[in-house]
Amino acid sequence: MFITFEGVDGSGKTSQIHGLAERMRAEGLPVTVTREPGGSVGAEEIRSLLLKGEADRWSPETEILLFTAARRDHLEKTVWPALEAGEIVLCDRFVDTTRAYQGLKGPDQRAMVENLHASMIGILPDLTVLLDIDPDVALARSIGRLASVGSGEDRMEKKGLAFQHSLRAAYLEIAANEPRRVMVVSALGSPEEVASRIWRAVRERMPVTAGLVDPTI
Amino acid sequence: MFITFEGVDGSGKTSQIHGLAERMRAEGLPVTVTREPGGSVGAEEIRSLLLKGEADRWSPETEILLFTAARRDHLEKTVWPALEAGEIVLCDRFVDTTRAYQGLKGPDQRAMVENLHASMIGILPDLTVLLDIDPDVALARSIGRLASVGSGEDRMEKKGLAFQHSLRAAYLEIAANEPRRVMVVSALGSPEEVASRIWRAVRERMPVTAGLVDPTI
Repeated sequence: MFITFEGVDGSGKTSQIHGLAERMRAEGLPVTVTREPGGSVGAEEIRSLLLKGEADRWSPETEILLFTAARRDHLEKTVWPALEAGEIVLCDRFVDTTRAYQGLKGPDQRAMVENLHASMIGILPDLTVLLDIDPDVALARSIGRLASVGSGEDRMEKKGLAFQHSLRAAYLEIAANEPRRVMVVSALGSPEEVASRIWRAVRERMPVTAGLVDPTI
Repeated sequence: MFITFEGVDGSGKTSQIHGLAERMRAEGLPVTVTREPGGSVGAEEIRSLLLKGEADRWSPETEILLFTAARRDHLEKTVWPALEAGEIVLCDRFVDTTRAYQGLKGPDQRAMVENLHASMIGILPDLTVLLDIDPDVALARSIGRLASVGSGEDRMEKKGLAFQHSLRAAYLEIAANEPRRVMVVSALGSPEEVASRIWRAVRERMPVTAGLVDPTI
Protein backbone atom coordinates (compact mmCIF):
# COMPACT_ATOMS: atom_id res chain seq x y z
CA MET A 1 0.00 0.00 0.00
CA PHE A 2 1.39 3.32 -1.14
CA ILE A 3 0.15 6.31 0.89
CA THR A 4 1.19 9.89 0.16
CA PHE A 5 0.70 13.03 2.21
CA GLU A 6 0.11 16.47 0.77
CA GLY A 7 -0.69 19.88 2.16
CA VAL A 8 0.43 23.48 2.42
CA ASP A 9 3.42 24.49 4.55
CA GLY A 10 2.66 24.16 8.24
CA SER A 11 -0.08 21.58 7.76
CA GLY A 12 1.98 19.18 9.89
CA LYS A 13 2.56 16.47 7.26
CA THR A 14 6.03 15.43 8.39
CA SER A 15 5.27 14.90 12.08
CA GLN A 16 1.94 13.22 11.30
CA ILE A 17 3.69 10.77 8.95
CA HIS A 18 6.16 9.79 11.65
CA GLY A 19 3.37 9.39 14.19
CA LEU A 20 1.42 7.20 11.78
CA ALA A 21 4.51 5.08 11.05
CA GLU A 22 5.01 4.48 14.78
CA ARG A 23 1.38 3.50 15.21
CA MET A 24 1.54 1.09 12.27
CA ARG A 25 4.74 -0.48 13.56
CA ALA A 26 3.10 -0.90 16.95
CA GLU A 27 0.37 -2.86 15.11
CA GLY A 28 3.07 -5.06 13.60
CA LEU A 29 2.83 -3.57 10.11
CA PRO A 30 6.06 -3.13 8.11
CA VAL A 31 6.45 0.53 7.14
CA THR A 32 8.86 2.56 5.01
CA VAL A 33 8.82 6.34 5.45
CA THR A 34 10.16 8.47 2.62
CA ARG A 35 9.80 11.92 1.08
CA GLU A 36 10.00 13.95 -2.10
CA PRO A 37 11.87 15.56 -3.64
CA GLY A 38 14.52 13.08 -2.54
CA GLY A 39 14.02 9.71 -0.89
CA SER A 40 16.92 7.92 -2.63
CA VAL A 41 20.61 8.73 -3.01
CA GLY A 42 20.25 9.85 -6.63
CA ALA A 43 17.01 11.74 -6.03
CA GLU A 44 18.58 13.58 -3.07
CA GLU A 45 21.39 14.71 -5.36
CA ILE A 46 18.87 15.97 -7.92
CA ARG A 47 17.00 17.66 -5.05
CA SER A 48 20.20 19.50 -4.03
CA LEU A 49 20.66 20.63 -7.60
CA LEU A 50 17.06 21.92 -7.66
CA LEU A 51 17.36 23.84 -4.39
CA LYS A 52 20.84 25.28 -4.98
CA GLY A 53 21.32 28.81 -6.28
CA GLU A 54 18.78 31.38 -7.39
CA ALA A 55 15.07 30.58 -7.36
CA ASP A 56 14.76 31.21 -11.10
CA ARG A 57 17.90 29.38 -12.22
CA TRP A 58 15.80 26.57 -13.76
CA SER A 59 12.92 27.19 -16.13
CA PRO A 60 9.58 25.52 -15.34
CA GLU A 61 10.30 22.95 -18.10
CA THR A 62 13.75 22.01 -16.79
CA GLU A 63 12.42 21.96 -13.24
CA ILE A 64 9.61 19.55 -14.17
CA LEU A 65 12.11 17.27 -15.94
CA LEU A 66 14.41 17.27 -12.91
CA PHE A 67 11.53 16.60 -10.50
CA THR A 68 10.38 13.73 -12.72
CA ALA A 69 13.93 12.30 -12.89
CA ALA A 70 14.17 12.48 -9.09
CA ARG A 71 10.75 10.82 -8.75
CA ARG A 72 11.69 8.03 -11.13
CA ASP A 73 14.90 7.31 -9.17
CA HIS A 74 13.02 7.48 -5.87
CA LEU A 75 10.42 4.98 -7.13
CA GLU A 76 13.04 2.57 -8.50
CA LYS A 77 15.39 2.64 -5.53
CA THR A 78 13.02 3.10 -2.58
CA VAL A 79 9.27 2.89 -3.22
CA TRP A 80 8.94 -0.08 -5.61
CA PRO A 81 11.39 -2.34 -3.70
CA ALA A 82 9.54 -1.60 -0.43
CA LEU A 83 6.12 -2.27 -2.00
CA GLU A 84 7.41 -5.50 -3.54
CA ALA A 85 8.69 -6.55 -0.11
CA GLY A 86 5.14 -6.10 1.20
CA GLU A 87 5.79 -2.90 3.12
CA ILE A 88 3.43 0.04 3.50
CA VAL A 89 5.11 3.12 2.04
CA LEU A 90 4.34 6.51 3.59
CA CYS A 91 5.61 9.32 1.39
CA ASP A 92 5.83 13.02 2.27
CA ARG A 93 4.73 14.74 -0.98
CA PHE A 94 4.41 13.08 -4.38
CA VAL A 95 2.98 13.95 -7.79
CA ASP A 96 0.17 16.13 -6.39
CA THR A 97 2.82 18.56 -5.11
CA THR A 98 4.21 18.86 -8.63
CA ARG A 99 0.70 19.18 -10.08
CA ALA A 100 -0.28 21.90 -7.60
CA TYR A 101 2.97 23.92 -7.78
CA GLN A 102 3.48 23.71 -11.54
CA GLY A 103 -0.22 24.07 -12.23
CA LEU A 104 -0.12 27.50 -10.59
CA LYS A 105 2.37 28.58 -13.28
CA GLY A 106 -0.16 27.90 -16.02
CA PRO A 107 -2.10 25.28 -17.98
CA ASP A 108 0.92 24.47 -20.20
CA GLN A 109 3.03 23.54 -17.18
CA ARG A 110 0.20 21.47 -15.76
CA ALA A 111 -0.15 19.60 -19.07
CA MET A 112 3.61 18.95 -19.08
CA VAL A 113 3.42 17.45 -15.60
CA GLU A 114 0.57 15.15 -16.63
CA ASN A 115 2.33 14.09 -19.83
CA LEU A 116 5.61 13.31 -18.06
CA HIS A 117 3.80 11.51 -15.26
CA ALA A 118 1.88 9.34 -17.72
CA SER A 119 4.93 8.46 -19.83
CA MET A 120 7.74 8.21 -17.26
CA ILE A 121 6.15 7.49 -13.86
CA GLY A 122 2.73 5.87 -14.23
CA ILE A 123 2.04 4.89 -10.61
CA LEU A 124 -0.51 6.73 -8.48
CA PRO A 125 -0.82 6.27 -4.70
CA ASP A 126 -3.46 3.92 -3.30
CA LEU A 127 -4.37 6.70 -0.91
CA THR A 128 -3.40 10.35 -0.65
CA VAL A 129 -4.03 12.16 2.64
CA LEU A 130 -4.51 15.87 2.01
CA LEU A 131 -3.91 17.64 5.31
CA ASP A 132 -6.08 20.69 4.84
CA ILE A 133 -5.65 23.89 6.79
CA ASP A 134 -6.12 27.62 6.24
CA PRO A 135 -2.58 28.95 5.59
CA ASP A 136 -3.22 31.89 7.96
CA VAL A 137 -3.96 29.44 10.77
CA ALA A 138 -0.95 27.29 9.82
CA LEU A 139 1.32 30.35 9.95
CA ALA A 140 -0.02 31.50 13.32
CA ARG A 141 0.48 27.98 14.64
CA SER A 142 4.02 27.67 13.33
CA ILE A 143 5.08 31.03 14.78
CA GLY A 144 4.45 29.44 18.16
CA ARG A 145 6.91 26.61 17.44
CA LEU A 146 10.60 27.22 17.83
CA ALA A 147 11.41 24.14 15.73
CA SER A 148 10.16 25.76 12.56
CA VAL A 149 12.53 28.72 12.86
CA GLY A 150 15.63 28.50 10.74
CA SER A 151 14.59 25.52 8.62
CA GLY A 152 14.93 27.63 5.51
CA GLU A 153 16.52 25.00 3.25
CA ASP A 154 13.44 24.60 1.16
CA ARG A 155 12.78 27.36 -1.30
CA MET A 156 9.15 26.21 -1.35
CA GLU A 157 8.73 27.48 2.20
CA LYS A 158 9.55 31.05 1.22
CA LYS A 159 6.84 31.89 -1.23
CA GLY A 160 4.52 33.79 1.08
CA LEU A 161 1.00 33.47 2.32
CA ALA A 162 -0.86 34.41 -0.90
CA PHE A 163 0.97 31.60 -2.68
CA GLN A 164 0.02 29.14 0.08
CA HIS A 165 -3.64 30.10 -0.37
CA SER A 166 -3.41 29.39 -4.13
CA LEU A 167 -1.68 26.13 -3.35
CA ARG A 168 -4.42 25.09 -0.93
CA ALA A 169 -7.03 25.76 -3.62
CA ALA A 170 -5.01 23.70 -6.12
CA TYR A 171 -4.80 20.76 -3.70
CA LEU A 172 -8.52 20.92 -2.96
CA GLU A 173 -9.25 20.92 -6.69
CA ILE A 174 -7.16 17.77 -7.15
CA ALA A 175 -9.05 16.16 -4.25
CA ALA A 176 -12.40 17.14 -5.77
CA ASN A 177 -11.38 15.55 -9.09
CA GLU A 178 -10.12 12.32 -7.53
CA PRO A 179 -12.25 11.74 -4.44
CA ARG A 180 -11.57 7.98 -4.40
CA ARG A 181 -7.81 8.45 -4.14
CA VAL A 182 -7.49 11.72 -2.22
CA MET A 183 -8.95 12.01 1.27
CA VAL A 184 -9.19 15.51 2.69
CA VAL A 185 -8.36 15.48 6.42
CA SER A 186 -8.64 18.63 8.51
CA ALA A 187 -5.31 19.61 10.06
CA LEU A 188 -7.01 21.76 12.70
CA GLY A 189 -6.83 20.84 16.36
CA SER A 190 -4.16 19.12 18.42
CA PRO A 191 -1.63 16.75 16.77
CA GLU A 192 -3.41 13.87 18.55
CA GLU A 193 -6.78 14.83 17.09
CA VAL A 194 -5.32 15.08 13.59
CA ALA A 195 -3.53 11.74 14.07
CA SER A 196 -6.86 10.07 14.96
CA ARG A 197 -8.49 11.44 11.82
CA ILE A 198 -5.62 10.18 9.68
CA TRP A 199 -5.70 6.78 11.34
CA ARG A 200 -9.41 6.43 10.62
CA ALA A 201 -8.88 7.48 6.98
CA VAL A 202 -6.06 4.99 6.51
CA ARG A 203 -7.95 2.10 8.19
CA GLU A 204 -10.95 2.70 5.96
CA ARG A 205 -8.84 2.31 2.81
CA MET A 206 -6.58 -0.44 4.11
CA PRO A 207 -6.81 -3.50 1.90
CA VAL A 208 -7.65 -6.83 3.47
CA THR A 209 -4.13 -8.12 2.80
CA ALA A 210 -2.62 -5.55 5.12
CA GLY A 211 -4.07 -7.58 7.97
CA LEU A 212 -6.10 -4.89 9.69
CA VAL A 213 -9.50 -5.91 8.34
CA ASP A 214 -11.12 -9.28 8.84
CA PRO A 215 -11.29 -10.82 5.33
CA THR A 216 -14.48 -12.70 6.18
CA ILE A 217 -16.53 -9.56 6.71
CA MET B 1 21.69 28.30 -38.27
CA PHE B 2 21.96 25.45 -35.80
CA ILE B 3 24.53 22.79 -36.83
CA THR B 4 25.19 19.68 -34.78
CA PHE B 5 28.00 17.12 -35.07
CA GLU B 6 27.61 13.45 -34.37
CA GLY B 7 29.82 10.40 -34.69
CA VAL B 8 31.44 7.51 -32.84
CA ASP B 9 34.37 8.05 -30.46
CA GLY B 10 37.52 9.02 -32.37
CA SER B 11 35.65 10.38 -35.37
CA GLY B 12 37.29 13.73 -34.69
CA LYS B 13 34.14 15.78 -34.01
CA THR B 14 35.60 18.11 -31.42
CA SER B 15 38.69 19.25 -33.34
CA GLN B 16 36.72 19.56 -36.58
CA ILE B 17 34.15 21.77 -34.86
CA HIS B 18 36.86 24.11 -33.62
CA GLY B 19 38.49 24.20 -37.05
CA LEU B 20 35.15 25.02 -38.67
CA ALA B 21 34.46 27.75 -36.11
CA GLU B 22 37.82 29.38 -36.91
CA ARG B 23 37.12 29.22 -40.62
CA MET B 24 33.68 30.76 -40.17
CA ARG B 25 35.05 33.54 -37.99
CA ALA B 26 37.71 34.21 -40.63
CA GLU B 27 34.81 34.70 -43.06
CA GLY B 28 33.30 37.21 -40.66
CA LEU B 29 30.50 34.93 -39.47
CA PRO B 30 29.47 35.07 -35.80
CA VAL B 31 29.81 31.60 -34.26
CA THR B 32 29.00 30.00 -30.92
CA VAL B 33 30.60 26.62 -30.16
CA THR B 34 28.95 24.42 -27.57
CA ARG B 35 28.55 20.78 -26.62
CA GLU B 36 26.29 18.22 -24.98
CA PRO B 37 25.80 16.95 -22.41
CA GLY B 38 26.58 20.33 -20.89
CA GLY B 39 26.91 23.66 -22.64
CA SER B 40 25.37 25.81 -19.89
CA VAL B 41 26.06 26.15 -16.16
CA GLY B 42 22.99 24.13 -15.15
CA ALA B 43 23.46 21.51 -17.86
CA GLU B 44 27.11 21.04 -16.86
CA GLU B 45 25.96 20.35 -13.30
CA ILE B 46 23.46 17.78 -14.57
CA ARG B 47 26.25 16.32 -16.74
CA SER B 48 28.46 15.90 -13.65
CA LEU B 49 25.61 14.14 -11.88
CA LEU B 50 25.20 11.80 -14.88
CA LEU B 51 28.90 10.93 -15.12
CA LYS B 52 29.54 10.59 -11.37
CA GLY B 53 29.57 7.19 -9.71
CA GLU B 54 28.82 3.76 -11.10
CA ALA B 55 27.80 3.32 -14.73
CA ASP B 56 24.48 1.74 -13.75
CA ARG B 57 23.54 4.13 -10.97
CA TRP B 58 20.79 5.67 -13.10
CA SER B 59 18.17 3.61 -14.91
CA PRO B 60 17.65 4.27 -18.64
CA GLU B 61 14.44 6.16 -17.77
CA THR B 62 16.10 8.45 -15.21
CA GLU B 63 19.07 8.95 -17.51
CA ILE B 64 16.83 10.03 -20.41
CA LEU B 65 15.00 12.48 -18.12
CA LEU B 66 18.30 13.96 -16.90
CA PHE B 67 19.71 14.23 -20.43
CA THR B 68 16.50 15.96 -21.52
CA ALA B 69 16.65 18.35 -18.54
CA ALA B 70 20.27 19.19 -19.42
CA ARG B 71 19.33 19.69 -23.08
CA ARG B 72 16.45 21.99 -22.17
CA ASP B 73 18.70 24.13 -19.96
CA HIS B 74 21.41 24.19 -22.65
CA LEU B 75 18.90 25.35 -25.27
CA GLU B 76 17.42 28.04 -23.03
CA LYS B 77 20.68 29.46 -21.74
CA THR B 78 23.07 28.99 -24.70
CA VAL B 79 21.59 27.84 -28.02
CA TRP B 80 18.38 29.87 -28.33
CA PRO B 81 19.95 33.18 -27.18
CA ALA B 82 22.81 32.71 -29.69
CA LEU B 83 20.42 31.86 -32.54
CA GLU B 84 18.26 34.86 -31.67
CA ALA B 85 21.37 37.07 -31.76
CA GLY B 86 21.95 35.83 -35.32
CA GLU B 87 24.88 33.55 -34.51
CA ILE B 88 25.67 30.22 -36.10
CA VAL B 89 25.64 27.57 -33.36
CA LEU B 90 27.98 24.59 -33.70
CA CYS B 91 27.10 21.89 -31.20
CA ASP B 92 29.15 18.78 -30.35
CA ARG B 93 26.46 16.06 -30.00
CA PHE B 94 22.71 16.68 -29.68
CA VAL B 95 19.53 14.61 -29.77
CA ASP B 96 20.92 12.04 -32.25
CA THR B 97 23.43 10.97 -29.61
CA THR B 98 20.58 10.30 -27.21
CA ARG B 99 18.59 8.53 -29.94
CA ALA B 100 21.53 6.32 -30.92
CA TYR B 101 22.69 5.46 -27.39
CA GLN B 102 19.26 4.91 -25.84
CA GLY B 103 17.95 3.22 -28.97
CA LEU B 104 20.58 0.52 -28.51
CA LYS B 105 18.97 -0.33 -25.17
CA GLY B 106 15.67 -1.17 -26.85
CA PRO B 107 12.61 0.15 -28.69
CA ASP B 108 10.95 1.31 -25.44
CA GLN B 109 13.89 3.55 -24.62
CA ARG B 110 13.95 4.91 -28.14
CA ALA B 111 10.21 5.71 -27.95
CA MET B 112 10.82 7.49 -24.62
CA VAL B 113 13.52 9.65 -26.19
CA GLU B 114 11.22 10.61 -29.08
CA ASN B 115 8.31 11.36 -26.77
CA LEU B 116 10.41 13.54 -24.45
CA HIS B 117 12.03 15.30 -27.38
CA ALA B 118 8.65 16.09 -28.95
CA SER B 119 7.07 17.35 -25.72
CA MET B 120 9.98 19.09 -23.95
CA ILE B 121 12.56 20.07 -26.61
CA GLY B 122 10.97 20.37 -30.04
CA ILE B 123 13.85 21.94 -31.99
CA LEU B 124 15.87 19.93 -34.54
CA PRO B 125 19.15 21.17 -36.07
CA ASP B 126 19.12 22.82 -39.49
CA LEU B 127 22.02 20.56 -40.38
CA THR B 128 23.62 17.59 -38.67
CA VAL B 129 27.09 16.52 -39.78
CA LEU B 130 27.57 12.81 -39.13
CA LEU B 131 31.32 12.18 -39.13
CA ASP B 132 31.38 8.59 -40.26
CA ILE B 133 34.30 6.24 -39.67
CA ASP B 134 34.87 2.55 -39.05
CA PRO B 135 35.44 2.32 -35.27
CA ASP B 136 38.44 -0.03 -35.85
CA VAL B 137 40.10 2.66 -37.95
CA ALA B 138 39.19 5.35 -35.43
CA LEU B 139 40.75 3.31 -32.63
CA ALA B 140 43.97 2.62 -34.58
CA ARG B 141 44.17 6.34 -35.38
CA SER B 142 43.63 7.44 -31.79
CA ILE B 143 46.26 5.04 -30.43
CA GLY B 144 48.75 7.12 -32.38
CA ARG B 145 47.71 10.28 -30.58
CA LEU B 146 49.01 11.02 -27.12
CA ALA B 147 46.31 13.61 -26.52
CA SER B 148 43.61 11.02 -26.33
CA VAL B 149 45.31 9.14 -23.50
CA GLY B 150 43.96 9.88 -20.06
CA SER B 151 40.83 11.75 -21.13
CA GLY B 152 38.71 9.16 -19.39
CA GLU B 153 36.15 11.48 -17.85
CA ASP B 154 33.40 10.40 -20.17
CA ARG B 155 31.89 7.03 -19.42
CA MET B 156 30.68 6.91 -23.04
CA GLU B 157 34.28 6.49 -24.18
CA LYS B 158 34.70 3.25 -22.27
CA LYS B 159 32.12 1.00 -23.83
CA GLY B 160 34.36 -0.93 -26.18
CA LEU B 161 34.64 -1.49 -29.88
CA ALA B 162 31.57 -3.71 -30.41
CA PHE B 163 29.44 -0.99 -28.87
CA GLN B 164 30.99 1.63 -31.17
CA HIS B 165 30.07 -0.53 -34.18
CA SER B 166 26.43 -0.70 -33.03
CA LEU B 167 26.49 3.02 -32.45
CA ARG B 168 27.81 3.68 -35.95
CA ALA B 169 24.96 1.60 -37.39
CA ALA B 170 22.44 3.52 -35.28
CA TYR B 171 23.79 6.86 -36.53
CA LEU B 172 23.72 5.72 -40.15
CA GLU B 173 20.11 4.60 -39.71
CA ILE B 174 19.15 8.04 -38.41
CA ALA B 175 20.92 9.60 -41.41
CA ALA B 176 19.09 7.27 -43.81
CA ASN B 177 15.74 8.27 -42.26
CA GLU B 178 16.45 12.00 -42.34
CA PRO B 179 18.67 12.61 -45.39
CA ARG B 180 17.65 16.27 -45.67
CA ARG B 181 18.84 17.10 -42.17
CA VAL B 182 21.71 14.67 -41.63
CA MET B 183 24.71 14.78 -43.96
CA VAL B 184 27.10 11.83 -43.75
CA VAL B 185 30.71 13.01 -44.10
CA SER B 186 33.59 10.54 -44.23
CA ALA B 187 36.03 11.07 -41.37
CA LEU B 188 38.81 9.21 -43.20
CA GLY B 189 41.93 10.99 -44.35
CA SER B 190 43.85 13.92 -42.92
CA PRO B 191 42.12 16.48 -40.66
CA GLU B 192 42.46 19.01 -43.53
CA GLU B 193 40.70 16.69 -45.98
CA VAL B 194 37.87 16.08 -43.52
CA ALA B 195 37.64 19.83 -42.83
CA SER B 196 37.22 20.51 -46.58
CA ARG B 197 34.39 18.00 -46.82
CA ILE B 198 32.63 19.54 -43.83
CA TRP B 199 33.10 23.04 -45.24
CA ARG B 200 31.50 22.00 -48.53
CA ALA B 201 28.61 20.32 -46.71
CA VAL B 202 27.99 23.39 -44.56
CA ARG B 203 28.20 25.86 -47.49
CA GLU B 204 25.69 23.82 -49.46
CA ARG B 205 23.13 24.09 -46.67
CA MET B 206 23.93 27.62 -45.62
CA PRO B 207 20.87 29.86 -45.88
CA VAL B 208 21.08 33.04 -47.91
CA THR B 209 20.85 35.16 -44.77
CA ALA B 210 24.16 33.81 -43.49
CA GLY B 211 25.82 35.87 -46.20
CA LEU B 212 27.80 33.13 -47.94
CA VAL B 213 25.46 32.67 -50.89
CA ASP B 214 24.52 35.38 -53.38
CA PRO B 215 20.76 35.94 -52.84
CA THR B 216 20.25 36.83 -56.53
CA ILE B 217 21.23 33.38 -57.80
